[in-house]
This record gives sequence, structure tokens and C-alpha cells, in this order.
Amino acid sequence: MTNCWKELVEKKRNQLYNKIPAGWRLDEETINRIKNDSTNVAANIDKLCPKEENDITNTTLLELKDKIANKKVSCYEVAYAFCHRAALIHQVVNCLTEILFDEALETAKRYDLDTPDVLPPLYGIPISLKDQCNVENVDTTLGYLNRAFKPKSKQDESLIVTLLRDAGAILYVKTTVPPSMMATETVSNLFGYTYNTINTNFSTGGSSGGEGALIGARGSVLGLGTDIGGSIRIPSSYHGLVGLRPSTGTVPYLRVDNSWEGREVISSVIGPMSRDIKDLRYFMDLMANDFKPHLEDVKCSPFYFDAKNDRFTNDYVVGIQYGDGVITPTPTDLQALKLCEDTINSIPGFRAIKWSPPTELNDEMYSLAWETDLADAGKEIKSEFDATGEPLCEILEPMVLDDSRKQYTVNQWWDLSRRINDAKQRYRDYYNSFETKDRPSVIICPSTLHPFKPGNMLKATVRYILFVNLLNFPSLSLPITSFKSEIHKIKQDTCTALNHEDEIEMEYWNELINDDQMEGFPISLQIMSPTFDNNEVCKFGAFLLEKLSSHK
Amino acid sequence: MTNCWKELVEKKRNQLYNKIPAGWRLDEETINRIKNDSTNVAANIDKLCPKEENDITNTTLLELKDKIANKKVSCYEVAYAFCHRAALIHQVVNCLTEILFDEALETAKRYDLDTPDVLPPLYGIPISLKDQCNVENVDTTLGYLNRAFKPKSKQDESLIVTLLRDAGAILYVKTTVPPSMMATETVSNLFGYTYNTINTNFSTGGSSGGEGALIGARGSVLGLGTDIGGSIRIPSSYHGLVGLRPSTGTVPYLRVDNSWEGREVISSVIGPMSRDIKDLRYFMDLMANDFKPHLEDVKCSPFYFDAKNDRFTNDYVVGIQYGDGVITPTPTDLQALKLCEDTINSIPGFRAIKWSPPTELNDEMYSLAWETDLADAGKEIKSEFDATGEPLCEILEPMVLDDSRKQYTVNQWWDLSRRINDAKQRYRDYYNSFETKDRPSVIICPSTLHPFKPGNMLKATVRYILFVNLLNFPSLSLPITSFKSEIHKIKQDTCTALNHEDEIEMEYWNELINDDQMEGFPISLQIMSPTFDNNEVCKFGAFLLEKLSSHK
Repeated sequence: MTNCWKELVEKKRNQLYNKIPAGWRLDEETINRIKNDSTNVAANIDKLCPKEENDITNTTLLELKDKIANKKVSCYEVAYAFCHRAALIHQVVNCLTEILFDEALETAKRYDLDTPDVLPPLYGIPISLKDQCNVENVDTTLGYLNRAFKPKSKQDESLIVTLLRDAGAILYVKTTVPPSMMATETVSNLFGYTYNTINTNFSTGGSSGGEGALIGARGSVLGLGTDIGGSIRIPSSYHGLVGLRPSTGTVPYLRVDNSWEGREVISSVIGPMSRDIKDLRYFMDLMANDFKPHLEDVKCSPFYFDAKNDRFTNDYVVGIQYGDGVITPTPTDLQALKLCEDTINSIPGFRAIKWSPPTELNDEMYSLAWETDLADAGKEIKSEFDATGEPLCEILEPMVLDDSRKQYTVNQWWDLSRRINDAKQRYRDYYNSFETKDRPSVIICPSTLHPFKPGNMLKATVRYILFVNLLNFPSLSLPITSFKSEIHKIKQDTCTALNHEDEIEMEYWNELINDDQMEGFPISLQIMSPTFDNNEVCKFGAFLLEKLSSHK
Repeated sequence: MTNCWKELVEKKRNQLYNKIPAGWRLDEETINRIKNDSTNVAANIDKLCPKEENDITNTTLLELKDKIANKKVSCYEVAYAFCHRAALIHQVVNCLTEILFDEALETAKRYDLDTPDVLPPLYGIPISLKDQCNVENVDTTLGYLNRAFKPKSKQDESLIVTLLRDAGAILYVKTTVPPSMMATETVSNLFGYTYNTINTNFSTGGSSGGEGALIGARGSVLGLGTDIGGSIRIPSSYHGLVGLRPSTGTVPYLRVDNSWEGREVISSVIGPMSRDIKDLRYFMDLMANDFKPHLEDVKCSPFYFDAKNDRFTNDYVVGIQYGDGVITPTPTDLQALKLCEDTINSIPGFRAIKWSPPTELNDEMYSLAWETDLADAGKEIKSEFDATGEPLCEILEPMVLDDSRKQYTVNQWWDLSRRINDAKQRYRDYYNSFETKDRPSVIICPSTLHPFKPGNMLKATVRYILFVNLLNFPSLSLPITSFKSEIHKIKQDTCTALNHEDEIEMEYWNELINDDQMEGFPISLQIMSPTFDNNEVCKFGAFLLEKLSSHK
């Protein structure tokens, strides 16, 4: 079996490559040239495509929708442009797991020939899918070789995929993930390494890394990621995207494959990633008011979302979290937070307050999230690797404990659930410790702090990420500004580190500053709703982006 | 230690007994006389109380509320009447675990002296509490000796208790449960056996058995029970009460003690039990619109409830479930179901349809619920008993597996959760297999089928009970009619039994018919909402009761 897995990997990679039309294949020299021109992936891809295609791909979902409705472009032209661009991006950064170009182009052609009078809400819009969504006739691998060559049936198809199809969306690609999705770097034996398309020196993040890279280089207007520990927000933050980790029960997870299915405590959620906040809001509005997945998926509930609602209450309070008391945010994040605070306070009727939950609670939530992820001691992950003999990926080593470590018993698990609930309750108590008029509608908080280089996953803390999953707050990754050497090239003084972990983080930041490769890299924060209001985070996110751009 | 537990039991029982004022104590002869006059507990208690007290206790919560508001009775008179009556009932059927008469009377006195201009919504209304609710200064035992003599602090107090206090309710008693609440018969080493107050030949049911008995004999207008496997519905059905098993996240469970805290799959819920549907609806309306527990308890969500909403859609569809394909409902239940069907079909704009989910699915849901309850092989229950050396109660033997049986690992538990979710999804698929216009708003279904005698717990199936907990449907126990020998004395033909389990059920029914002690015993069904609408089951329940009584 030892080498057998390598043959199977080769077979899967060939299967994928063979689905790229010959005319779209790039030679190795071009690939390397683009990859080495690290911050210009999208611009280099532009040069490989005709202007008409770039006009299509360099637009938003809502604009595309208008263009299709007004017959300024055909569905076929749109599908062709995105298939082509996705194929090119993939060859440079390795972000796809399945290619459905033939089906996509055929469907688009059919849509053009037989256009209904009233267009479904996503008619002719290409939507990309993380490799957890089941699509008829193709694999869902979750990054495991063990799950390759097991194409899904019509019955297996994810509800969200069926809903997208029914709404007229064009499915054309599935995108890379690290095996099990329990890593923030996207690499697998099966598909290799996915690079960042904003700056190829850095990781694309994970686990929705393929989506991040593809959308980041305009190979998709909107894609679906999942988030059990930052997997939507991390790649979104690393590509300057808006990415929503919705609260559970909004976007349907029915028949979306996953690790640890049935693990109800700290659930994975599925949500949209996009370059444009209006597109993202349109998608969520469709979900709440058009798709109504709660009629099909027992885990979903009706929820409020109105993309057209731009009203704010008088005396709108925004919490600003400058830190968690454990890890000092980077100078760029602190500046971004200050920028948000000043912007908010400059708007009549808006007010920023300090949001500082107790350090012990922040720390405990982080520990509880880790304890949850390690509760089976990595047994499921290991069994997936063992099934084919492919070696455990290095990025997953923290997740797989040595053989002597047993899985939790059900009683230990219930006790952990109870402690998690206690922590959530104490976070609520902190919120309730504010007078009603001072309780924030949304909270702005750091997320990824800084990029990391391939192989350095563990040097980028997830302290500002995991607690949000524990709390199940909707959270929107929002690009606030970008790295400018002239103002952001500030080293951290490790003498001010709060603890050893903080010191390591600071040292890595200083290394990044020394390397001097971050110019233009997005600086993202996250907007959370402590009252589980998905609409609120998106509405405020859109508002803030607008104010920030008008202040520039 | 062997006999030490008996001394502690004695001490707890004395502590309880000593809180009954000397003038309210009954001699053994009176107690036995009332108990032996099996179907006349309430009538016998009436004779022991002055007319003024009976006028108070023989009324509804809403009427009491009016009387207090109009100063027709004082809070003290109300509290006194209910304390007195509860003390008397308890001495006959053994339904209390804690007595708070002194505090109750003192609070009531204070309320009379210092009445606010606008009365809080439960001003002066006595509310009884199952012995899971934490009240300052008294124990919460869950029926375990191990938890006695550990009075709760102010901080421990259940949110629902605080909300009731704040709304002006008078807390005066806590009521019996079987240890762990995982039984449908209410008996413990600590407090002994709780008898049915409608007919002392039968069990009070469980686990909210003390509540059932107390409310059944008018010792309370409304009490709180919990339901993880019928514990509200069963005692309600056995006392002709309305008892709502709400869906999760409505009535707050925060700081209510429980078995298996942190077991999120098939959760226990807390809900109201009452003699009057209007009272129950008032309570739930308060919860949704006044108490708003979701602001405090992270497990709660806002929900719709409007006690004044008596509107029905045109062409209102009601599903009638005549059986589950495994256990044949008793002749009384079949007649009650037919009565409901005929009544519904006789009302213009209403329509009954047959509701018959696949037998295999009904069976699977039952098995999954049992598998869930046995997932820790009884380890937690056993450890509670072992802590003091009290012997395991016989009723809990099915819950505690032999020592060789291990608890589930976390992976087995996740797999079970996944299978439960699959089953819920298939139930939804069955619902969705109806055309939209034919989908029932509510479903009427058997619940307990028949009473059982002390010691015969396992002869009363919970097949029509447990699947509702798995589905998390709100379900209202509703008394439809009562046993009349002249029409209901029908034996079941065991030759028609669907299987061995069905045969055993039939044989027990025939035994009950032979015994001929069921005259007047309530025949209850349950009303469930397949769309998790707590308001709908209560609104329809009230409507049905009214129609049934006008048809009589």
C-alpha cells in the first residue's frame, strides 16, 4: 500500500488537469513568472484574458445580474469568462478540486436559448463551492485521498447546491481545503499547496483557502465556505474579502459533508465569501426570504435579513475590542481599530465604546475551543489517513494526539459541553453588565492579526478567531485598510509582551516586518453581533466600509 | 455507611414534615381513609378546608389574578389557602420535597401591605416548582440523597425562579421527582412514593409526578415541570391537566439542575402544567413577551406567543395519528382520536387528515431515544447513588447497565447525534411529502395510552412519548374525555397484536379492564406542532377543548 496512495493522488490530479481545455493550459514558465510576481496575480491573469472577459470578471454579482437581465452579456459569455479565469488562477495557485466547465457552459447555453420571462434570482451567476458541498457526479474529498473517486449521486447533493441550481446559479468549480478542514493553511497530499492570490509569498489561509484564493483573484464573484474555527474569516481576511460566518441554522448544512458529523457543540457553519458586501447581503437576503431552507433542513430556522434595510437606531453603540488580554494585536490592527473608533465617533448618532470581556474568560473560551477540537484525540482524522496509507499532513499534527491518548467518554463530552455553555453564559453576563443603552449592537474585533508564510501556520494565532465559534456569534470579516510600509512598518517591542505566547507572536510579526513583503496586504477586522443578528453585522459592515472609503 | 443513608433519609423527611404547621397535620387514620377513597382525594381535602379556602383553590390563575386585583381576596388569603391545601394533599399522596410556607405567607403579607399601583403579572399567585428548580436556602435533590442538605445560594437560583419572583409569584413548595428524572414513576428512597390524586390506585406518572399530583388535587394552579422523555406530558395526562412540553429555548433552563448537564442532543425542556388552558397560555405569553428570557439565558431565543390570538387560517389542516405501527393504541385512545377527527371535520374551514409516518421511522426514533438515554451506561446515576450508599431504585434499573458496559466514546456519541439528525430529517421529509395545502398545522397523537399501577411502570409504553423529545416538537398534553365503563370497557384482542411488545401492552390493558378501577380516569392525547410553533399547539388545544365541551 505504501506507494499506492501516490498513484491514486496522481490519478486524481490528472483527472482534474484533464478537465482544463487544452487552449487554457499554461506552460510552466508562465506559471512560475506569475507566481513570482507575487502581488500581481490578478493583473497577470488579466493579461491572459481578452478585455471582454475581464469586463465580466471584474464586476460584482449584482452588476452581472443586471447585465444578464438586460442582455448586455449572455449567460454563456459569463460562464465562459469565469471558467477560463478560474482555470488560469488554479494553474498558478492550485485552488480547485473539481472542474465542471462542460456542465457549466452547457447549462449557460441552455439558459440563453430558453430564458424564462421572470429570471430566477441567480440566473446565470457562477457560484464557487468549497469541497465539502456535494454536487452530483463529482467527489467531495474534504482533502482526504480516502474520499476521492467516490462521486456523489443526485440524492447526495447538498440542499444548498440544489437551492443554488434552482435559483439559476451556474456551478463550475469546487475549491481546495486542508484534510478534515481543521487547519488554517490549505495543503493536502491530494491537491498540494494553495497559495494566496493577493500575495503568493503568503498562505491563502484556511480551511476555505481555495475559495479565498479564487475569489481574491476574481475567479468567482461569490463562493461558499464553512467556518468551525475561522475557515471563512481567515481566508477572507487574507484576500481582502467580505466573508460572513453566519450563526448556525441560517445557510443550510444539510448533506454538506463534514468532519465529526453529529458534533453539535461548536458547530461548523456554511456561509458566503465575496469581494463585495452588497453581493454578500443579496445572498443572505435570498437565503432568508427566498430560499427559506428551514422548510427543508431541520437544523435551520427562519431568520431576519433585509439587504435593503440601512436604518440604524438613534444612539447606535459599537463595541471596540482592542485586545483579549493575552495576545497584543499588531500595530496595524490597533491602527485599524482606532480608525474604526474615530470614524464611528465622527458620525452623529453613533458612538464607540470599549469592549473588554475579562481576560480569564477570553482565555478560557480559547482553551475550551481547543479542548473541543481535541476531544476525539484525532481518531477520526487518523482513520481517514490510515484508510489509504497516505501520510498525515504536517499541518494536522496538532490535531492528532499520540495513540495512548483516548477519546473523551460521553460523560467527559457532556461535561465539556456544560463548561462551554457556562462560558457562553458568562460572556452574556458581561454584555448584560452594561446598561441597556450602552449595550453594543455590533462589536469590532481583531481577527487574523497578520499573514503567515507557507509552513508557518502555527505562528499565526487563532485566539481572536475561535471564541467567536464557541459563542456562535455571526461574524463578518471586513477589509479595513491595507499595509503601507511608510506608516505600518512598526516593530513590536517584545519587552511589552504579556506572556510567552504573546512574545512569539511579536517575534513573528517583527520577522514579517524585516522580510518587508506585506506592502498592500489587506488588514481585516471582524464585526460580530452579540445578539446573533446576521443582518446587523452585514448592514453595519456595509455602512462602515462606505464611511471608511469616504474618509479616505 | 450501609445504614447511614437511612438516617439521612429520616433526617430529610423530618425536616420536611416539621415545616407543616401543627394545626395542618393529619392523623394516620384520616390519611388512610382519604387514600383508600381512591377517586375522591380532592373532594376529601375539600372537606378538611373552610369554604373560603376552597373558593380560592377551586379557581384558575386568571380568576385569582382578577380577584387579587379587585381586592376580593388578599394575597395572604390566597397564599394561606394554597399552603394549607398543599400540606394536606402532601400528607395523603407524598408530593412535596420542600415547604416554603413561612416565606410564602410573609411575602404575601408584605404584598398586601405594600401593593404597587400597577400589579406585576403574577402578583400574589402561588406557583409550584419541580425539585430541579433552585430556590435560595433550600435543596434541589433531583431525588438523590446525595444532593440533600446542600441548600442553594442566591447566586444558584434558577433564572425562571427569579423571573417568577420578580413577577410577583409566591413560591411555596417544591415537588417530588424520581432520582435523575429518568423514570415515569415518581418514587425515591429519599421521599418515598407519590400517588395519583385523581385515582390513588394508579401511579402519578413522572418524572414531574409531584407537580401532577399537587395540581391534580388543586394544591396549585400552575407549576413547572420538565420533559426529556415525557416528564411533563405523562403526569399531566394522568391527572387530566394541560401540560406543555415547549420546544427548547423558550422557558429558560438556566441554573435549573439536571441530570447529564451538557447533553445537548434530545434536551430536557422546562414548561408549565395547569388545570386550565387559559392559565397555561397566559404563562407562555408572559414568557415570550414579558419575561423575555433570551436576554439572560444564552440557550433561549425570542419566540412568538400570543394568548389572545384565536385566529385560524382558512382550510386549517389537523393531522390525526391513529398509531405508530408498533403499538396499537387502546380502544379509549382510538375513540378519543375519532372524536377529535369528527369534531374537527364538523367545523367549517377545518379538516382532519391521516398522519402516518413510516413504521420503520417511528421505531427507529424510539430506539434512538433509548440509545441516547443509555449512552453513558448509567454511570452518572450510579455515581449519585454510590456517593451515599443509598441503594439503586428499582425503577432506575433499566437505566443502569452492568459494570462491563462502557459509556460511549465521543465518536460513538457524535455518530449517534448524526443518526438522530438523519431521523429528524426523514420525519421532515415525510411532512414535506404532503402538498403545501395538506401539511398539518398540528398533529393529534396518543400519548400515555393508559394508567399503570405502582410498580408497573414498564407496562406503560413510552413509544408515543419519546419520539416527540427526539423531534423537539412542542407538544401539549390535553384531556379529551374520561374513562366510562359503560362505553370504554373493551378488551383488546391479543390475536390482533402487531408484535410481542404490542401483545404485552394489550395484556396489561385487559388486566386494567378486569380490575375495573379506571372509572373517570382522564383520557388524554397530545397536540404537536411539526413546525415548532408553541403558540399553535396551545391555540388549537384551547379551541379543541372548547369544541369538545360544546359537543358534549
